[in-house]
Amino acid sequence: MTGSIAVIGAGSWGTALAVLLARKGFLVNLWARRQELVVELEEVRENKAYLPGVKLPAGIRPTTDLELATREVDLVVLSVPSHAVRLTARQLKPFLSPGIIVVNTAKGLELDTKKRLSEVLAEEGLEQVAVLSGPSHAEEVGRGLPTTVVVAAADRQVAEYVQDIFMDPTFRVYTNPDVTGVEFGGALKNIIALATGIADGLGLGDNARAALMTRGMVEIARLGVALGGKAMTFAGLSGIGDLIVTCTSMYSRNRRAGMQLGEGKALAEILSGMGMVVEGVRTTAAARDLARQYQIRMPITEEIYQVLYEGKPVRECVAALMERPRTHEVETGIW
Amino acid sequence: MTGSIAVIGAGSWGTALAVLLARKGFLVNLWARRQELVVELEEVRENKAYLPGVKLPAGIRPTTDLELATREVDLVVLSVPSHAVRLTARQLKPFLSPGIIVVNTAKGLELDTKKRLSEVLAEEGLEQVAVLSGPSHAEEVGRGLPTTVVVAAADRQVAEYVQDIFMDPTFRVYTNPDVTGVEFGGALKNIIALATGIADGLGLGDNARAALMTRGMVEIARLGVALGGKAMTFAGLSGIGDLIVTCTSMYSRNRRAGMQLGEGKALAEILSGMGMVVEGVRTTAAARDLARQYQIRMPITEEIYQVLYEGKPVRECVAALMERPRTHEVETGIW
Repeated sequence: MTGSIAVIGAGSWGTALAVLLARKGFLVNLWARRQELVVELEEVRENKAYLPGVKLPAGIRPTTDLELATREVDLVVLSVPSHAVRLTARQLKPFLSPGIIVVNTAKGLELDTKKRLSEVLAEEGLEQVAVLSGPSHAEEVGRGLPTTVVVAAADRQVAEYVQDIFMDPTFRVYTNPDVTGVEFGGALKNIIALATGIADGLGLGDNARAALMTRGMVEIARLGVALGGKAMTFAGLSGIGDLIVTCTSMYSRNRRAGMQLGEGKALAEILSGMGMVVEGVRTTAAARDLARQYQIRMPITEEIYQVLYEGKPVRECVAALMERPRTHEVETGIW
Repeated sequence: MTGSIAVIGAGSWGTALAVLLARKGFLVNLWARRQELVVELEEVRENKAYLPGVKLPAGIRPTTDLELATREVDLVVLSVPSHAVRLTARQLKPFLSPGIIVVNTAKGLELDTKKRLSEVLAEEGLEQVAVLSGPSHAEEVGRGLPTTVVVAAADRQVAEYVQDIFMDPTFRVYTNPDVTGVEFGGALKNIIALATGIADGLGLGDNARAALMTRGMVEIARLGVALGGKAMTFAGLSGIGDLIVTCTSMYSRNRRAGMQLGEGKALAEILSGMGMVVEGVRTTAAARDLARQYQIRMPITEEIYQVLYEGKPVRECVAALMERPRTHEVETGIW
């Protein structure tokens, strides 16, 4: 295919998507905030810090200039951390031509407002927004291993436009009209990654992990449906699919933090030892607030909250979850 | 709790359930076909072949006598291999008191007729049947590790009766009215275990495995819904939950067989090397027949069929699955 695309953000995921698109024949303007990184990308043709071992194809043009990056492109791919989405969108907006589609690939909620990131983008005046999500370690996409994702957009034509741009023999793209559901699954999965990490750290076994993943996605779906998502989306690639990858991989910081909690380490010690943000910690508080506001039962989220913020011993959570009153698996109208 | 229960079948799962129930205070008549096994269970108080390391509580009474096993019990738990369900039910029927509830814990279809096992039991004159399924390695249940399962029955009171008997701080039971959906998920998961095993054997990575699990459960759900199941059941413990355990564990023969296929071994060699039935091989053919009969698209099942029965090279399956025409994630009315 021909054409040019702006990828805004040169972390692991932005770089992997830029490599995928360049391999397909697109010219890709890869924007990074830091000049040193752009120099390295240009000279070494590799993102050593975030995607080591993957050569950047010639079609990738690194830059720190947002205006240059977005000039006359056919698509803008936004791949900055979730907390940077609003500011980046605000900086980007003046350079966007009318009608240009922006695909957000960050996962998370804006924590202070508890808004989905596509809501944030809409507030910043971006008109045509799609969301790309699913079980996709950047490392594997960079290496060309088979990967499937979902592109969600309210407008089907927008979703299919993005689908056609990304679709590749190594990268299969499904569309889904349920933007809310797709964003919620990706945003809240880290709570369950913490929970399964704790279970793994306690040595609870495969049965417990599968139970936490399944029932964890059920409670995320319950909240997501209350906020306008479709239950079935949470059973798809952006819901349980992404959760499977996150909860069975050592790449996930949230899972590793959970494992250390399960092994008895204190949260403060874990967080300082990682030296990086563990998103699930703040997501848990945000999800619990939403659950209370919408009166949704989220027993796993509640237990993780009490571990993180109230010092509850992890062993007590297991008993609390297992010994709740008997219930049905599928509730009327939702699950 | 008090009362007595017959557990018919002393394999891994039957023994683990007998141990669970005996720990709860029930007297458990544990029926085994072979006299030698009964003698071992009585003398050693351990099932060394099928559940090593787990002591049998005093409340377990092993026997080869079906009439004795079922006399004046409050519940019959059927835990024989799926291919033995019909014959065992036929032998059991004369001894069952009217109205007694039988819980089937075997997973699979009757391969020749492609019937669900509860249909087989109904044909053999068993009137009150429930089904127990979910992510539950017997080894972990025997060790008392936290486990969740689903009990399905058409009659809610039947499901809740069984729920109360099994429910325990280490064994959480949910009910579900969708017997068809619960049985289908458990019966067909082995196809996907083969598929993810192949992917692991090929070294395709975490993204591919999560994709196969998610989209695999979608196609199983598509068939299950055509046959009367509810889509949401496949997103629950007996569907994706059980699949997660099966596809991430080395306990699964199907997964191990798949891995060897992925590594390039021939099927005949793998099967003779295992010396045991790999259920997924015959399940794949049965599911493919049903898919054709009901005109349901099951692309993963179709590829696995071609590998198993037509010698298709496994690498070609990856391309065939990834390069199908673009599609939507959620289809109208089903997923």
